[in-house]
Amino acid sequence: MEKIVIVGTVAFDAIETPFGKTDKILGGAATYIGLSASNFGVDAAIVSVVGKDFPQRHISMLKSRELDLEGLEIVQDGKTFFWSGKYHNDMNTRDTLITDLNVLANFNPVVPAGYKDAKILMLGNLHPSVQMSVISQVHNPKLIILDTMNFWMDCALTELMQVIAKVNVITINDEEARQLSGEYSLVLAAQKIMEMGPEFVVIKKGEHGALLFHKDNIFSAPALPLAKVFDPTGAGDTFAGGFTGYLSKTGDFNYENMKAAIVYGSVLASFCVEKFGTERMLEVSKKEINQRIDQFKSLTQYNMKRL
Amino acid sequence: MEKIVIVGTVAFDAIETPFGKTDKILGGAATYIGLSASNFGVDAAIVSVVGKDFPQRHISMLKSRELDLEGLEIVQDGKTFFWSGKYHNDMNTRDTLITDLNVLANFNPVVPAGYKDAKILMLGNLHPSVQMSVISQVHNPKLIILDTMNFWMDCALTELMQVIAKVNVITINDEEARQLSGEYSLVLAAQKIMEMGPEFVVIKKGEHGALLFHKDNIFSAPALPLAKVFDPTGAGDTFAGGFTGYLSKTGDFNYENMKAAIVYGSVLASFCVEKFGTERMLEVSKKEINQRIDQFKSLTQYNMKRL
Repeated sequence: MEKIVIVGTVAFDAIETPFGKTDKILGGAATYIGLSASNFGVDAAIVSVVGKDFPQRHISMLKSRELDLEGLEIVQDGKTFFWSGKYHNDMNTRDTLITDLNVLANFNPVVPAGYKDAKILMLGNLHPSVQMSVISQVHNPKLIILDTMNFWMDCALTELMQVIAKVNVITINDEEARQLSGEYSLVLAAQKIMEMGPEFVVIKKGEHGALLFHKDNIFSAPALPLAKVFDPTGAGDTFAGGFTGYLSKTGDFNYENMKAAIVYGSVLASFCVEKFGTERMLEVSKKEINQRIDQFKSLTQYNMKRL
Repeated sequence: MEKIVIVGTVAFDAIETPFGKTDKILGGAATYIGLSASNFGVDAAIVSVVGKDFPQRHISMLKSRELDLEGLEIVQDGKTFFWSGKYHNDMNTRDTLITDLNVLANFNPVVPAGYKDAKILMLGNLHPSVQMSVISQVHNPKLIILDTMNFWMDCALTELMQVIAKVNVITINDEEARQLSGEYSLVLAAQKIMEMGPEFVVIKKGEHGALLFHKDNIFSAPALPLAKVFDPTGAGDTFAGGFTGYLSKTGDFNYENMKAAIVYGSVLASFCVEKFGTERMLEVSKKEINQRIDQFKSLTQYNMKRL
């Protein structure tokens, strides 16, 4: 097992979907990544920031998942990052209603002393300069995984490109891969992005699954088909957390093992979307995860007479 | 090997894509289905209609593929069905510019005597009443496969539902599945469509692949990721032709074998889109097909340590 540093938001979200709406509930990239990775019994620290409005019960819950919170700064005169969004009927598109950066506006991440030797760095979606600061604090990482989004391509591209040059794996959605590369074909987009630095490119396609690219190899993982997607919030982060957790647990970062990590990421994301926010992730059992791993197998495996 | 009757259009297409445009070239659902199925050395008859403007060289080419054309009516004072369309930059959407039904307006399909005992019926996209006429002419089919589109849902729904009630397999795209079922989730859509008649539902998702549903089982086949999609025309029919050809060759219509048929359909469709119209399908070799079958395997297969 390899130690993980997770950097990303710990936040409040208010979510509206065609099925209902929430008040301020627990959210944030690092929250979803951490909860998902914790299914593998890993040793992970969350580096993030919240305000003094952040309830003790959320802190206790994260600690109960064996997530190290020494790197979670609590700003006494600040308020926790707040995001509010509304999903359209297709559940694939959403409008952001409110983004209150609050304590995130002046966030200086501090990696705890005990995690400066971590071998895995999972950089959740945040300003690239924050991601870069975390990279510089970890001595000798073997695997750096980056998640980012179009917002940073629009307003911090130079810094983002510097981060991209330093990472081993980038996870990004299909439209963002097209924007970043200027290529419509995802095959060509992934090739161009690999030239920017990462040896591995993971393109997330929401309900259509994910593609893993490495050199000339491509692996395709479908999303598990679901009767109902209740709330997509956090699915991408949960995917990244499952991916990271599996790699930490197995300690093997080659292409073959990354495929299995993608499958675990997909399976965990399939739970995340079934209830509001983190609700489903807090109750999912090892038995349920194993059942979906079996389901994933029957969804993708076949035997063939060659003609 | 089981005899196949293929009904569908044999047509002229004029196609415009971001990469170029064609004059009137050979097209039509039955053409693509037949060419694709012919890779399996099957015994298939095409039931369709053309005008006397249809060139002898196309007829010779189809015959050279061992496709029986006794059921291809040539109307001496008529013109061949003509479709013209223009693809948008994303290659997933297109505008129809011209649809000249011509001889298709009064088409009475006649299944040749030698094929009335065919065990497989592949009903390409056409008016449901034409599809129904073909069903009624074949004595004891073991497998009826239906392809259709939203156009018939809009203007011939009653007849279409009667056809759907009689078939074993329906192939349909994702938006059409949603329209036909009134369900957004493809899982629920497929369940509702199975209640209409077919034991097997194949939902085509273009660049995102295809899903096969049967009872509670789901199989997901990605599309082979391609650096360039040149012309998507005929891809769905080529998929259906590969699917049908494999089932004919193996004579095994159970769920497990249908998975492999889906893989062959996907692989053949991946060639179709690489050049204009039928061009690529006319030159593809068994060796190339086998290479892509291997590629498909590495795209989808994985080994996993269970945690």
